[in-house]
Amino acid sequence: MYKGDVSAAGEATALCMIMNSSTSLKMRLPALVLVFEVVMLILFALFVTYDDNANARLQNNETNPMENSLYRDYPYFADVQVMIFVGFGCLLAFFRFYGFSGMVFNFLTATFAIQWAIVIQGFFQFYYDGKIHLGVINLLNAEFACAVVLISFGAVIGKTSPVQLLVMALLEIPIFSVTEWAVLKYIRITDSGGSILIHLFACYFGLGVTFVLYRPSLKKGHSNEITSYQSDILSVMGTLFLWVFWPSFNSALTLKGDDQHRAVLHTFIGLSSSTITAFALSAVFNKKGKLTMADIQNVTLAGGVTVGASVDMMISPVAAYALGIMGCTACYFGYRYLTPFLAQRLRIQDQCGIHNLHGLTGLISSTAGICAILLATEETYGPSMYQIFTHRAPPVGDPKLLELQKLIPGLKPGLGRTAQEQALYQVAAIFATIAASAVGGLLTGMVLKLRFMASPSDKDCFDDELFFDVPSDFDRGHQALISYDEKLKMSSMDTKVASKNLSE
Amino acid sequence: MYKGDVSAAGEATALCMIMNSSTSLKMRLPALVLVFEVVMLILFALFVTYDDNANARLQNNETNPMENSLYRDYPYFADVQVMIFVGFGCLLAFFRFYGFSGMVFNFLTATFAIQWAIVIQGFFQFYYDGKIHLGVINLLNAEFACAVVLISFGAVIGKTSPVQLLVMALLEIPIFSVTEWAVLKYIRITDSGGSILIHLFACYFGLGVTFVLYRPSLKKGHSNEITSYQSDILSVMGTLFLWVFWPSFNSALTLKGDDQHRAVLHTFIGLSSSTITAFALSAVFNKKGKLTMADIQNVTLAGGVTVGASVDMMISPVAAYALGIMGCTACYFGYRYLTPFLAQRLRIQDQCGIHNLHGLTGLISSTAGICAILLATEETYGPSMYQIFTHRAPPVGDPKLLELQKLIPGLKPGLGRTAQEQALYQVAAIFATIAASAVGGLLTGMVLKLRFMASPSDKDCFDDELFFDVPSDFDRGHQALISYDEKLKMSSMDTKVASKNLSE
Amino acid sequence: MYKGDVSAAGEATALCMIMNSSTSLKMRLPALVLVFEVVMLILFALFVTYDDNANARLQNNETNPMENSLYRDYPYFADVQVMIFVGFGCLLAFFRFYGFSGMVFNFLTATFAIQWAIVIQGFFQFYYDGKIHLGVINLLNAEFACAVVLISFGAVIGKTSPVQLLVMALLEIPIFSVTEWAVLKYIRITDSGGSILIHLFACYFGLGVTFVLYRPSLKKGHSNEITSYQSDILSVMGTLFLWVFWPSFNSALTLKGDDQHRAVLHTFIGLSSSTITAFALSAVFNKKGKLTMADIQNVTLAGGVTVGASVDMMISPVAAYALGIMGCTACYFGYRYLTPFLAQRLRIQDQCGIHNLHGLTGLISSTAGICAILLATEETYGPSMYQIFTHRAPPVGDPKLLELQKLIPGLKPGLGRTAQEQALYQVAAIFATIAASAVGGLLTGMVLKLRFMASPSDKDCFDDELFFDVPSDFDRGHQALISYDEKLKMSSMDTKVASKNLSE
Repeated sequence: MYKGDVSAAGEATALCMIMNSSTSLKMRLPALVLVFEVVMLILFALFVTYDDNANARLQNNETNPMENSLYRDYPYFADVQVMIFVGFGCLLAFFRFYGFSGMVFNFLTATFAIQWAIVIQGFFQFYYDGKIHLGVINLLNAEFACAVVLISFGAVIGKTSPVQLLVMALLEIPIFSVTEWAVLKYIRITDSGGSILIHLFACYFGLGVTFVLYRPSLKKGHSNEITSYQSDILSVMGTLFLWVFWPSFNSALTLKGDDQHRAVLHTFIGLSSSTITAFALSAVFNKKGKLTMADIQNVTLAGGVTVGASVDMMISPVAAYALGIMGCTACYFGYRYLTPFLAQRLRIQDQCGIHNLHGLTGLISSTAGICAILLATEETYGPSMYQIFTHRAPPVGDPKLLELQKLIPGLKPGLGRTAQEQALYQVAAIFATIAASAVGGLLTGMVLKLRFMASPSDKDCFDDELFFDVPSDFDRGHQALISYDEKLKMSSMDTKVASKNLSE
Repeated sequence: MYKGDVSAAGEATALCMIMNSSTSLKMRLPALVLVFEVVMLILFALFVTYDDNANARLQNNETNPMENSLYRDYPYFADVQVMIFVGFGCLLAFFRFYGFSGMVFNFLTATFAIQWAIVIQGFFQFYYDGKIHLGVINLLNAEFACAVVLISFGAVIGKTSPVQLLVMALLEIPIFSVTEWAVLKYIRITDSGGSILIHLFACYFGLGVTFVLYRPSLKKGHSNEITSYQSDILSVMGTLFLWVFWPSFNSALTLKGDDQHRAVLHTFIGLSSSTITAFALSAVFNKKGKLTMADIQNVTLAGGVTVGASVDMMISPVAAYALGIMGCTACYFGYRYLTPFLAQRLRIQDQCGIHNLHGLTGLISSTAGICAILLATEETYGPSMYQIFTHRAPPVGDPKLLELQKLIPGLKPGLGRTAQEQALYQVAAIFATIAASAVGGLLTGMVLKLRFMASPSDKDCFDDELFFDVPSDFDRGHQALISYDEKLKMSSMDTKVASKNLSE
Repeated sequence: MYKGDVSAAGEATALCMIMNSSTSLKMRLPALVLVFEVVMLILFALFVTYDDNANARLQNNETNPMENSLYRDYPYFADVQVMIFVGFGCLLAFFRFYGFSGMVFNFLTATFAIQWAIVIQGFFQFYYDGKIHLGVINLLNAEFACAVVLISFGAVIGKTSPVQLLVMALLEIPIFSVTEWAVLKYIRITDSGGSILIHLFACYFGLGVTFVLYRPSLKKGHSNEITSYQSDILSVMGTLFLWVFWPSFNSALTLKGDDQHRAVLHTFIGLSSSTITAFALSAVFNKKGKLTMADIQNVTLAGGVTVGASVDMMISPVAAYALGIMGCTACYFGYRYLTPFLAQRLRIQDQCGIHNLHGLTGLISSTAGICAILLATEETYGPSMYQIFTHRAPPVGDPKLLELQKLIPGLKPGLGRTAQEQALYQVAAIFATIAASAVGGLLTGMVLKLRFMASPSDKDCFDDELFFDVPSDFDRGHQALISYDEKLKMSSMDTKVASKNLSE
C-alpha cells in the first residue's frame, strides 16, 4: 500500500526545488506541527486532567456506571464526528481537480482545530481548581468550535495552503472561544443550535479572511472551478451525511428530555421543507428547467441552520416547517444574486457561498429565535420555561424562585429578565458576534498573507497537484479543453509522462 | 461552489425550449412543490402538535428527562436515516449514466414522502384530541412509510421523471397508510420486521405501477442500462450501509427488551448466511465462474427481509440462519428466471428486481412468521408470549388475564385468539395487503401516465442529462461504443462542446 | 438492475474454460460455502441458544426491559459494524484495478469470519449448560475476531483468491480463539483495546501467511500496484470512517462507566495527535514537499492502536497525546524503511504494511500498557483499581477483599497479583501471542498454497478482472502505459470488445 520513496538519489535536486517552490510543505508544515505539538504536550501536562465522570478515583459504591455522562453525550458526539469528518470532507471534495485537497485538508484542519479547542475552549469553559477537566462533553464542544473553522474554510477553499488553514485555525479558535465565553457569560443568550455563535461567527470570520485574501485575477473565475461527475456525487454524499445527522448536531447541547426531543423534531422538519424547496427553486430558475447539483449539495441544508436559534423552544411544528422554507429561499437567492455581487463589488470571494448557507440563514434563525423568546409564556411552556430561558428565572432571594424550585427541583437562579430584555440581549449578541468575527477574520487574513504561508499562485488554485503526489490518471483534461490541437499534443505527452512514471 | 447563471441573456431561447421539451421541470416540479407546501403548512398549523414527550408544559417535577421516549427511539431513527438517505441513495446510483438521478431523486422522494407520511399516517395512528401528536416515533414510522415508496421506486427507476416520483409518493403514502391502519386495526397481525406491510406492499404496488408504465420498445433493454466501475462501487457502498444498519431497521418497532434483542440477533444472522449464499450462487451460475456485482449489491440483502415477520419471536438462531439461506436462494433465482419472465411475458418491467428482493422474500418471511405463530407455546416464551402475540392475550374479563397481569404488569387485554386463528388472520392480511397494493399501484400507474408528468421518452431513459446540468466529463462513451467510426467523430465534437462550455 | 445471463448458449465453451482456468470460482467457492453452511446449520441447531437477555422465557415481572444488555452493547456494536464493513471495505479498495475485490472480498470474508467466530469463540467464551448463549455481546466479540482476520487480509491483499481468504478465516478464527482463551484464562492479562490479542495477533499471523505465499517475481512490484484518483479518495473515506468510530472500537469491551469514558477520551486524543504528526512526516520526507495519500490513509490511524493496551487506565490525557505521536512516528518509519526491508531481505511481502500499523504500534502500546500497570496505585485509581486490574484484587478469603467489597459492591475476587507480577504476565502474553500467531500464520500459509485454492498467477495479481465480471469501462489503461504504439492498437481492440459487449 505504501509507495514511499526511499531512494536518496535526487535528494539534492529536490532540495533545490524546495527553495524555489514557494508552496512546498517540506519545512513549513512539519515545523508548524512540531511546535504546536510541543506546546500541546506542555499544556496537556500542566493543565489537562479528567473530569469527574472519567476519573476512577471519584467513583464510589454509590456510583451507577450507567449514569455516567458518557452515555448522555457520546451518541451525539459520534454523530457529530461523522458530520465533521465524513460529511464536511465529502461535501468539500466537490471540485474536479481538488478532491484530495477538499477531503484531506478538512481532515487535517479538523483534527488540528479540535485539539486546540480542547485546550483553549477548555480554559474558558471547563477550567477550575487549576485544571481543564476533560470529558466527552469537552470533545463535543471542541467539535462545535471545529465546525466554526471548517465553515470559514469554505470561504477560502482552493486558494489556501494547508499551512494557511492551520494558522487560520490557530487564530480562529481563540477568537471564537473568547467571543463565545464573553457572549455566554456577559450577554447571556439562548442559542441552542448555535445560529449566532457558530453559524454567524463562522460566516463573518470567513468573509473577513477572504476579503483580505482577495485575488483580482480570479474575478472571472478559474478554469479549475468545475466539478466532475464523480466529484458531484461525492459531494452529494457529504450533504446526505450532514442532512441525516443534523438533528444530532442541533440537539447535542440542549437540555435533556423534552427540549432535546423538540430540537430533533424541528431540525428534521426544517430540513425536510428546506430540501423540497431547494429542488423547486433549482428547477424554476434554471434556463432549461433542469436541476443544478450545487443547489442540491448546499441549499437543501439551509433549513438545518434556520431552525437553530429556536430549535428547543415551543415554536410549534408548523413554524419549523415555515423556517425551513424561508431559510432555503434566502439561501438560494443569496447564491444566485448576493454571492456574485459580493465577489464583483465588495471584493469578497466566498468560494462555497458560506454567506448564504450560514450567514443569511443565521440571521433569519436569530430573528426567529428573538420572536420565539418574545412569544414565550408560562402558559405554553409551563414552569420549565425558566429552565429553557435560564436568564428569565428569578434571581437569588426572589420568593418566586423557591416556589418554582418546588415544581422543578434543581432550577438554578437566573437574572429575572423579562422577555423583552432577553430579546434585546439577543440582538446585542448578534451584533457583538458579527463584529468580533469580522474583525477577527480581517486580522487573520492579514496574517495569512505573510510570505512564508505557502499560498498558491493564482494559476495553481483549485489544483491537487500543488500539494499532493497525484496518481497517474489525475485528470489533466481541463487543459485539453482549451483547444483540440493542444489536446492532440497533450495526449502524446501524457503517454510519455505515464511511461516515465512506470519506469521509475 | 455555486455556478448559478445570472445572465438574463438567452432567456427567450430558454423559454422556447421549455415549451418544446416535455420533460422540463421548470414549471411542473415547482408548482407541485409549492402547492404541496401550502397544503402542508395548513395541515401542520391546524393539526400537528407535540406529543407528550416533546411538550414542555407536560413535564413536571416527577419527570425524569433521561426517560424521555427520545432516548428509546432516536438511536434507531438515526440508523434508519442513514439507510434511507445514504444506503438507498448509493444503492440506486448503480447505473453508469444515471448516478445523479438515482441518488438525488431518492433524496427528493424520501424527504417528500416522509413529510407527507407524518401527516397522513399521523391521522391514522397518532391522532387524538383533534391533533396529530408528533414525536420521534412518528418520524420513525414515517421513515418506514418512506421506505415503502423507495422500494416501489426501484421498479420504475430510470423511466420516470421526478414529477412522477413525487406524484407516486403522493398517492402511495395514503394508500399505504389506510392499508396499514386497516390491517393493524381490523385484521390485527404480528409483523415486526414489516415483511407484509412494508416489503409485500411496496413490491406489489411497484409492480402495479410498472405494469401500467410498460414500455414495449425497451423490451430488449436500453443501451444505457449498464454500470460503470465507479457506479458499481458506489452501489456496493449503499448495500454495505443497508447491511450494517438492517438490524436497527428490523428491530426499531419491536417491543423493548428481549424482543428487540432477538430482532437484532436474527437479522444479523439472516443477513450473514444470506450474504455468503449470494456469493456462492453468483459464482456457480456465472459462465466463467466469476462474481457478478449486481448479485452482491442485491441478493446479499435478502436475508434481512426473510427474517422480518418472525424477527422478534423465539424461532431459535438456527431458524434465522436457514431463513437467510432460503431467502437468498429464492431471491437469486428470481433475478435469474422470474424477472426476465415477468418482463417478457407479463409486461412487468421490474427495473431493480424488487419482486425478488422484497416480494419473494416477503412471502417466505410471512410464511415463516405463520409457522412461528403456530409453534409458539408458553413453554418456550413464558408468560411474555402474550406480550409478543398481543392478540392471543385473554380478552377483558377473562380470569386468566388477571393472573397473567400479575406476572406481566401492564399486559393489555387481547382478543383471546388461538395460534391457529392468529395464523389465519396473518394469511388474510397477506392477501389483503397484496390486493390493496396491486390495485393501488395500477391506479397510481394510470395517473403517472397523464400527459403533464414529464415522463422521459424511451430514448432518454436512464440518462442524467435529461434532468440535470451535467459536468463536462459526463460520460457519453456509451454512444461511442456503437462503432469506432462514430467514436472518432464524437471525440472531435466533444472537444468542441467542451471548449464551448469553457468559453461560456 | 440485474444483468444475469440466462442464455444457455456457450455453456459448453464455458465449461472448458473452467477446467483450464485455475482461478474460476465456479465450483470451489460454492462447494466451500455449501459445506460450511451445512456445518453451521448443524452446530447452530445443536449448540446455539439465546443468552438470558434475549430469552423471552427468562423475563419476569421484575425485568426492566430498558436494562436489557442490548442497550449497553448495541450502540458500540453498530459503530464497529460500520468500521468493519464500510471502513475496512473502502480502505482496502485503494488499488486502481482492485477496487471491486478490495471492497467485496472484505464483505465476504467479514460475514464468513463473524459467523464462524460466533460458534468457535462461543465455545470458548459463552458456553455453559451445553449451549453457546447468544447475545449482542457475542456478535461484538465475533466482530473483533473478524477484525483480526481482516487485518491479516491486509498483508496478502491482491495476491489471494476469495477461496484462499475464506480458508484463511476458517483457520485463523480457531487459532485466534484458542490463543485468546488461553491468554485470558491462564496468563490473565489486561488488554481492553486489544493491542496484544487483536493487533499483534493479526499482524504476526498475516506476516506468517504472506511469508509462505512469497512471490519472488513480484519483488520489484507489479504494474497494477498503483492507485487512481477515485480509489485514493475512496480509501480516505474508509480511513475517515475508521477514525470516527475508533473510540467505540477501543471502548466497546471495557468496563462501563468511567473506564469506558476514559477509553473514548484517550482514543480520540491519540488519534488526533497521530493524525497531525502523519501529515508532518508525510510532507517532510517527500522529495517535493508534497503529501502522500498512502500516509494519510494509513499512518493517521496509528494513534488508535497505540493507546489500546492502556486505553481505560488513568494514564492522563498527556500520555495519550504522546502515545499518538510515538505510534505514528514508528508507523511512518516502518512504512518507509522496514516494509521494503522485510520484502527484500526477509521474503515478507506485507502488502498494506500491517506490520507498521498494527505490529509496531501494538508493541509500543503493549509496552505502554505495562508501564501503566507498573505505575498504577490506589492513590490514583481509588479502590476501583481492583476492578480495572482485576487480577490484582485480593483472592478469596483475603480480609482485604471483604473490605474492598464494601467500597465496590460486586468486586470479584482476584489473584492478589502485585503490579510487577502483572507486568511480567503481560510480557509473557505478548510473547505467547506473537509465537502462536506466527506459527499459526505459517501453517495457514502452507494450506493456502495447496493447488485447488484458485490462487492467482503473478501476472493476474491486483486485477479485478480475474474474479469479477467488470463493466466495459474497467480501466485497462495500465497496459496502455507501456508504450504509445500498443495504446493505439489497444484502443481499437477496446472498441471492438465494447461493441461486442453491447451486442450481447
